[in-house]
Amino acid sequence: MADDKKLTKRADDFSAWYNETVLRAELADYSPVRGCMVIRPRGYGIWERMQHQLDTVFKETGHENAYFPLLIPESFMRKEAEHVEGFAPELAVVTHGGGKKLDEPLVIRPTSETIIYAMFSKWVQSYRDLPLLINQWANVVRWEMRTRLFLRTLEFLWQEGHTAHATEAEAEEETRKMLNVYRDFMETYMAMPVITGIKTESEKFAGALRTYGCEAMMQDNKALQAGTSHNLGQNFAKAFDVKFQTEAGDVAYAWNTSWGVSTRMIGGLVMTHGDDNGLIVPPLLAPIELVIVPIWRTDEDKVRVMEAAEKIKTSLTGWERRKSGKLRIHLDNREGIKPGAKYYEWELRGVPLRLEFGPRDLDANQCVLVRRDNRVKRTVTLESIGEDVADLLSVIQTDMQVAAYERREANSVRGGISYDDFKTLMEGKGGFVYAGFCGSAKCEQEIKEETKATIRCLPDEEFRSAVAPTTCLKCGGKSVAEALWAKAY
Amino acid sequence: MADDKKLTKRADDFSAWYNETVLRAELADYSPVRGCMVIRPRGYGIWERMQHQLDTVFKETGHENAYFPLLIPESFMRKEAEHVEGFAPELAVVTHGGGKKLDEPLVIRPTSETIIYAMFSKWVQSYRDLPLLINQWANVVRWEMRTRLFLRTLEFLWQEGHTAHATEAEAEEETRKMLNVYRDFMETYMAMPVITGIKTESEKFAGALRTYGCEAMMQDNKALQAGTSHNLGQNFAKAFDVKFQTEAGDVAYAWNTSWGVSTRMIGGLVMTHGDDNGLIVPPLLAPIELVIVPIWRTDEDKVRVMEAAEKIKTSLTGWERRKSGKLRIHLDNREGIKPGAKYYEWELRGVPLRLEFGPRDLDANQCVLVRRDNRVKRTVTLESIGEDVADLLSVIQTDMQVAAYERREANSVRGGISYDDFKTLMEGKGGFVYAGFCGSAKCEQEIKEETKATIRCLPDEEFRSAVAPTTCLKCGGKSVAEALWAKAY
Repeated sequence: MADDKKLTKRADDFSAWYNETVLRAELADYSPVRGCMVIRPRGYGIWERMQHQLDTVFKETGHENAYFPLLIPESFMRKEAEHVEGFAPELAVVTHGGGKKLDEPLVIRPTSETIIYAMFSKWVQSYRDLPLLINQWANVVRWEMRTRLFLRTLEFLWQEGHTAHATEAEAEEETRKMLNVYRDFMETYMAMPVITGIKTESEKFAGALRTYGCEAMMQDNKALQAGTSHNLGQNFAKAFDVKFQTEAGDVAYAWNTSWGVSTRMIGGLVMTHGDDNGLIVPPLLAPIELVIVPIWRTDEDKVRVMEAAEKIKTSLTGWERRKSGKLRIHLDNREGIKPGAKYYEWELRGVPLRLEFGPRDLDANQCVLVRRDNRVKRTVTLESIGEDVADLLSVIQTDMQVAAYERREANSVRGGISYDDFKTLMEGKGGFVYAGFCGSAKCEQEIKEETKATIRCLPDEEFRSAVAPTTCLKCGGKSVAEALWAKAY
Repeated sequence: MADDKKLTKRADDFSAWYNETVLRAELADYSPVRGCMVIRPRGYGIWERMQHQLDTVFKETGHENAYFPLLIPESFMRKEAEHVEGFAPELAVVTHGGGKKLDEPLVIRPTSETIIYAMFSKWVQSYRDLPLLINQWANVVRWEMRTRLFLRTLEFLWQEGHTAHATEAEAEEETRKMLNVYRDFMETYMAMPVITGIKTESEKFAGALRTYGCEAMMQDNKALQAGTSHNLGQNFAKAFDVKFQTEAGDVAYAWNTSWGVSTRMIGGLVMTHGDDNGLIVPPLLAPIELVIVPIWRTDEDKVRVMEAAEKIKTSLTGWERRKSGKLRIHLDNREGIKPGAKYYEWELRGVPLRLEFGPRDLDANQCVLVRRDNRVKRTVTLESIGEDVADLLSVIQTDMQVAAYERREANSVRGGISYDDFKTLMEGKGGFVYAGFCGSAKCEQEIKEETKATIRCLPDEEFRSAVAPTTCLKCGGKSVAEALWAKAY
């Protein structure tokens, strides 16, 4: 049951609003284990729909699921130099098992490159075994000091794709293909537009040749890295001896890719769409798309209204929407709770559409549909209720995506911002800034120290400004690439 | 690719046959981490189908999925006295995180009662919050010394249901209901008949009031415990303070249940149905139900035959079977591999039905269907191929279940076996023995020491002998219940 106290407003304290929304919409709860959360059914239901859709596309693109051990020998982590440097500070270490001290400590996977490529070296012998396209749904642990529900937790759920290819070109194609799978999913299903692009050296994955990412803008104008895809080159193949006989009869190292998205996306969904009344879930990912709230005062009315509610529910149950499957409906027939309290609760929980009606509506053979996203009401006849619900859900999905897109663009600055103005902006409302970059890690580092903003990515062509910047935002030197700057989660 | 060496025969060394089958059918592989396995796509595909079906029924019976932390404070394990006694020897302990020694060690969940009921105590306040019906799909770690692929591994995948109820009667009803969900699944989907019943005190779950289990007979006549369901009473509610206000206004402890099945079921499937040619997967759980193997000699034939193969595949793709969904078909169009080698490979991998045809078959507008379970061939006309494939798959599923049932019954002994004969039987071919039990832990323990057989369960009524035994198998004293004795995995 929802707490009666009003939510903190986003404008007053975005971070407090976020935590309250996640807790009170019952997406997740704090656990007694530091930095670990419990994903409650209303949150896990969103994750299940995310999993289902992504898994379907992974399979359509030729990948198969498998499962690798949680525990990894510490020595494995050290085989790839950059990898261990990146992950060593975040490891959880098992030193005892079955009452005895272990000869070699085991780490809980922070990511599975090492154990997976150790297995690939067994399975890949010939060019005929390539490409090897594997995905794993799993939990991972990274010892984070500052944690936030969904956004940064010691343990999180994710998928990690791992592939091996015969050539660098094929690996690069796979890396980009999966980045686009993520982008399509985020835009179409999460209604969360993203900027894709390549990461700079200082922001790339530890052990990768190149990292690409999807960056979304939250309502506080900060960026959220929502998914990454790595071309690992031959780094892990060399460290774990993933070699194969080529068609020509030579022996070569394989080219690997890895790519992942996690429960962090749920945090992104909340911060993209929520409002001061709570959560708003895009219909395609909503565990409940439509809640039916019948209204009555007298016992006589109640019988009539409840009967009609069941009938409406039954008539809607057959409806199927493209990409969404069978309509997911909940009938709130609880007694002793006023309709207003029910509205409040379902709005807080973000159900995209509400259907309400009382005896007078029944007399007029009509009911009222209320959109969660903009709270617009529409009276519709009961005859066409299926079509109206289905249409409205599709419209809500699209409108949410457009709204998120427009908000992002309204808070993006392109072309010719001075570094002083940039600093002022980052101290103030923030946002996405597209500006020139000379390519030096020094400029990147200095900007980070002075403004907390980082290069989120060097955007892909379609996201770049019509006129390419010519000078570096920081040093004024020649720009080698347009960069997307923002403060980030 | 399959190893060309012949499989060990079951009769020669069942255990070697099992390991070879699991490895060569590519269900799983050994990993570099002691006792941990890698579940490969062909094994994980079976697990995904198991998950999908069970998850559907869990939801139909009102349960919701959630996710709880992997890491549990060591002190939590100690709050329920029997629970810690049972699990302490099997714990993996995290002592270091983020480069520092932890103040309190964390254990990797061996099962999640403690962390889940700690959360339930936050969520359950009133009788209105009950019943609380939660399920979790997760990995768990138990520090086993002797491990076997799928059957006993340090880490395994499972689901664990956890519920809270207002009364003991409701908890008992839930415990039995989920046991029956397991039984139905194992019989209908795995084609693996089971005996259900209650566990004795010495075999029950650490911390439970009562444990019920599903016991299946493997082809070496040993029992496999394939799923358990526990009525936890108020043990954990008291340890974790799960209290609620009753409708009458009193405060009472909740009644809990927990129930689980794991990737161990895949081992049960292999040992129930496999033969000396390898794996046999029941159609309802087979990632591939039908493999199409076209046969050709000349290039001219090849074109014709491949064209026809694609056509047949397309025509079959629309077929849908009850409980099984869309027909899962693989067309083996690899070149440079003889049909016989392909047959061998797909038999080893247990694909339930093979469709083969060459140019002459096409001339006659026919093809050959070969069943994996009994290797019977049938020539069918291409016109009715969809019906024939669908029918045969249903028949195979049923026949596999009947064969497993008949094998079990042929190797079960009921009524009036002397203890000497029992010992001889257990030293020899083994099997299930139904016999009287005086109820004393001493008799149970002595039989275990002398024969390695244990009481698998006190069977539910429908599995009991027509004439109830009157004396204890061991001491000859008065029997209080009929017991099912067997050696077990």
